[in-house]
Amino acid sequence: MKNGSKIGPAAPREAMPLRRGNKRAFAPPLLALALDRAAALPLQRQLYDQIRDVILAGRLPPGARLPSSRSLAQELGCSRNTVVTAFEDLLAEGYLEGHTGSGTYVSRVLPEALLGVAGKGGPEDDASGTDAAPAPGLSRRGLTLAGLKRSGYDEARPFLPSLPETADFPFDVWSRLLSRSWRAPAVAQLRHGRAGGHPPLRAAIAQYLRAVRGLDCRAEQVIITSGAQQALDLAARGLLDPGDEVWCEDPGYQGLRGPLIAAGARMRPVAVDADGLSLAAGLAAAPKARMAVVTPSHQYPLGVVMSLKRRLELLDWARGSGGWILEDDFDSEYRYSGRPLSALAGLEAGNRARRVVYVGSFSKVLFPSLRIGYLVAPPDLAEPLQRVRRALDDHPSAIVQPALAAFIEEGHFSAHVRRMRTLYGARQAALLAAASRHFDGLLEVAPDEAGLHLVARLAPQLAARMDDIEASRRAAAAGITAPPLSGYCQNRPDVAGLLLGYAAFSVEAIETAARRLAEALK
Amino acid sequence: MKNGSKIGPAAPREAMPLRRGNKRAFAPPLLALALDRAAALPLQRQLYDQIRDVILAGRLPPGARLPSSRSLAQELGCSRNTVVTAFEDLLAEGYLEGHTGSGTYVSRVLPEALLGVAGKGGPEDDASGTDAAPAPGLSRRGLTLAGLKRSGYDEARPFLPSLPETADFPFDVWSRLLSRSWRAPAVAQLRHGRAGGHPPLRAAIAQYLRAVRGLDCRAEQVIITSGAQQALDLAARGLLDPGDEVWCEDPGYQGLRGPLIAAGARMRPVAVDADGLSLAAGLAAAPKARMAVVTPSHQYPLGVVMSLKRRLELLDWARGSGGWILEDDFDSEYRYSGRPLSALAGLEAGNRARRVVYVGSFSKVLFPSLRIGYLVAPPDLAEPLQRVRRALDDHPSAIVQPALAAFIEEGHFSAHVRRMRTLYGARQAALLAAASRHFDGLLEVAPDEAGLHLVARLAPQLAARMDDIEASRRAAAAGITAPPLSGYCQNRPDVAGLLLGYAAFSVEAIETAARRLAEALK
Repeated sequence: MKNGSKIGPAAPREAMPLRRGNKRAFAPPLLALALDRAAALPLQRQLYDQIRDVILAGRLPPGARLPSSRSLAQELGCSRNTVVTAFEDLLAEGYLEGHTGSGTYVSRVLPEALLGVAGKGGPEDDASGTDAAPAPGLSRRGLTLAGLKRSGYDEARPFLPSLPETADFPFDVWSRLLSRSWRAPAVAQLRHGRAGGHPPLRAAIAQYLRAVRGLDCRAEQVIITSGAQQALDLAARGLLDPGDEVWCEDPGYQGLRGPLIAAGARMRPVAVDADGLSLAAGLAAAPKARMAVVTPSHQYPLGVVMSLKRRLELLDWARGSGGWILEDDFDSEYRYSGRPLSALAGLEAGNRARRVVYVGSFSKVLFPSLRIGYLVAPPDLAEPLQRVRRALDDHPSAIVQPALAAFIEEGHFSAHVRRMRTLYGARQAALLAAASRHFDGLLEVAPDEAGLHLVARLAPQLAARMDDIEASRRAAAAGITAPPLSGYCQNRPDVAGLLLGYAAFSVEAIETAARRLAEALK
Repeated sequence: MKNGSKIGPAAPREAMPLRRGNKRAFAPPLLALALDRAAALPLQRQLYDQIRDVILAGRLPPGARLPSSRSLAQELGCSRNTVVTAFEDLLAEGYLEGHTGSGTYVSRVLPEALLGVAGKGGPEDDASGTDAAPAPGLSRRGLTLAGLKRSGYDEARPFLPSLPETADFPFDVWSRLLSRSWRAPAVAQLRHGRAGGHPPLRAAIAQYLRAVRGLDCRAEQVIITSGAQQALDLAARGLLDPGDEVWCEDPGYQGLRGPLIAAGARMRPVAVDADGLSLAAGLAAAPKARMAVVTPSHQYPLGVVMSLKRRLELLDWARGSGGWILEDDFDSEYRYSGRPLSALAGLEAGNRARRVVYVGSFSKVLFPSLRIGYLVAPPDLAEPLQRVRRALDDHPSAIVQPALAAFIEEGHFSAHVRRMRTLYGARQAALLAAASRHFDGLLEVAPDEAGLHLVARLAPQLAARMDDIEASRRAAAAGITAPPLSGYCQNRPDVAGLLLGYAAFSVEAIETAARRLAEALK
């Protein structure tokens, strides 16, 4: 039984001013969408596929406004929930953007990769298409993944966020430790390793986390990964099934999307307020979520700290529902003032059934190309997750693990963190001082007790002239990297600003760049 | 509309001798299976889920025989194809085992991990269960992955296959190169790297493959991965969608299962004969496959070489259908006699639209804990696949890449391969000599022009007494590792034997172990 329907009247491509910045919406062209109730594919997935194909084929241009979920459901004769679910998936994957009350649009900045690849052989016709000739390129999942934008890989110039200072790293010590660990290695170091990694490194990390982050953990719970990214990927595939819903902070870490989308999970953005992510907002967004991914110590990118009340509520939810909390403690090492907070996972000390999977990384503390992170699993989950890892990726490379273990054990790690903390504290102060000199009426920058970047909100005078995407574009034209906050958002029209990373740049470079940024925005 | 059905009469657990070895089948207990045609989940998936749950809950014990697909389809009122597809997925994932004409059984050796984990909180009831309280542990996908068996991680004793000799590796050179590359690294070496890896290493690999494997490739096509395993994982997620069918060699490489199952692909075993995998057999098994994973140079584990006719047929299929060929050239470096064959990917030289994704690894050539492999993508696919990799896993660690590039460029790699080829050639000869002395009437061992192991088929006299699982068990009891060939099979009752790895063991150790193995089997 086919139930075809044409949606949206054929309308001229008239520009309709919207309430936000320079955004324009176009009425959609005639689109033939049709749901097949006899097909095995769920209706929401059929709708998702068809809208996605229409976008990839360019028949719905960037900025085009979609019909409301209510009217589309009516025209297609399906439940509104079917349409909402399809929209949510397309929003999460970056095909659509939208804001409560102001409609849903094709993303203005469709990743070039997506368009480029689709142009070379993406889905080009309306057929729901399991039998259509396969496109000579990536799969649909591959196309989605290839189209995800990631910032942080641009030229290393001010104010690229998430880049640590690498000039002061003790490479003499580092190269000596690498050489020492490979001059006459034990045979065990050369053979297939344990899925969790090199035991001395796991022990060193467990000891560090017990002492510094309040975690009650043993070496056996630590799984060494290729950066925090692989830890997320492992958790997504080991703990989630396709279709499972996941609460993600909005705004939040862009790198989540790849592993979660690849795992078939449905990302459900949950607005972050001054106390972090709230359980109530999560339950409203997706009452049956299986996982919450949070950055409680220092929210990424806003920098807020999750309140104790919120932490306890979240733990209660996880225990009661059997859900998982994935705690990304991404830059806990760099806290300049205030009480160092224990990790959320630390609140579970002594509990029998634990629900927090803790993730950390050395990339921002040592240097990004190191690509070593770790996952700390609850005791019951450590062995099963290592089996999952064995099936997917065997075990981590042994090359750096003995040297990194020695680097921690011999005190070089702590010493480096202390040195960098002083350096970064001074650089944040320099950025704040430069901001007070140059940003008046343009950007409002508040100090942050932690991290490697500051959030600069658009001042009302600037926000009246441009949105943060335009501000970021003008900065780039002046040789300044300053990613727009809205690029980290799914559904937060109230959040606009620029991310200003300061860790990798000298006090002089920070002053010069701040002045140029101000000129560019005037 | 619920269509419930009880299957199989309640029967006592009587042992029913089967035609193969010591295998026993039990009539299944009463099982309540029910398909819900109103549900969004396809019927075959519902059936898959329910049979899987019944096995995990222990209500169908290992060895239990399932009803025929025909009778089960009749009882459930669904198409036979629905049942066959569910069975095929369960076979591919190791829950069931079966052979054409002799029925389908619950796997005798259900991975302990699976049972252990399931016992701690796996699905315990009949509810098809999207609303049931979630199990406090891995997801269903996670459980499946955790349950996959992998050999090769056992104690390093004869005849563990796939283990190279590590004692003769030039660690003085290696530690010097590591130290040199990290004493005063360029800033670019410390920052976020390219998704494809360190350019000099990619260039060194491309040059090697052009010279030695006949590949027409440039550095830009090479993507450095964490072992061949991550290359498979990347190809599975970038080139396949959930539900896509993949031809896999039977017998074949066990490590395929993790990435393919995690990607939601359906593995379709295709019997390998003396000329390798045949297109006709593939088309018969799954006419709409999207990918073929093959080891044409030296089939794993049988060692046969894919004929030129088969190679050309497979390339024609890929071009015509838009399918992909994933060529795992896993131990091409070790060929002791005969003409060194070009890679299958080499046959595409000069073609515009290429369909072969080539995968290689350094783990068996240098040492297993290195965990460095690579994927060579067709030119059009290289950039999109790197974007997929960026979304999933950023980029490979920089730690070993400069040193490995220098190791290759300065000739140490070629020199090591030459030394090892001589050593392994002598060790294979030693194993063949020991076999001719000790294995008469027990095992039939043929020489192999390549690789790190030999296949020992059970002699008729031994096969009359035991199957290869029992033979492997007796070997293990005598301190000898010799994995059963049937452990690499999905649907090959005709394949029985032991894998005998010789590369990592001295001539003396090989002789002693062969004698003890013979005694254990007598």
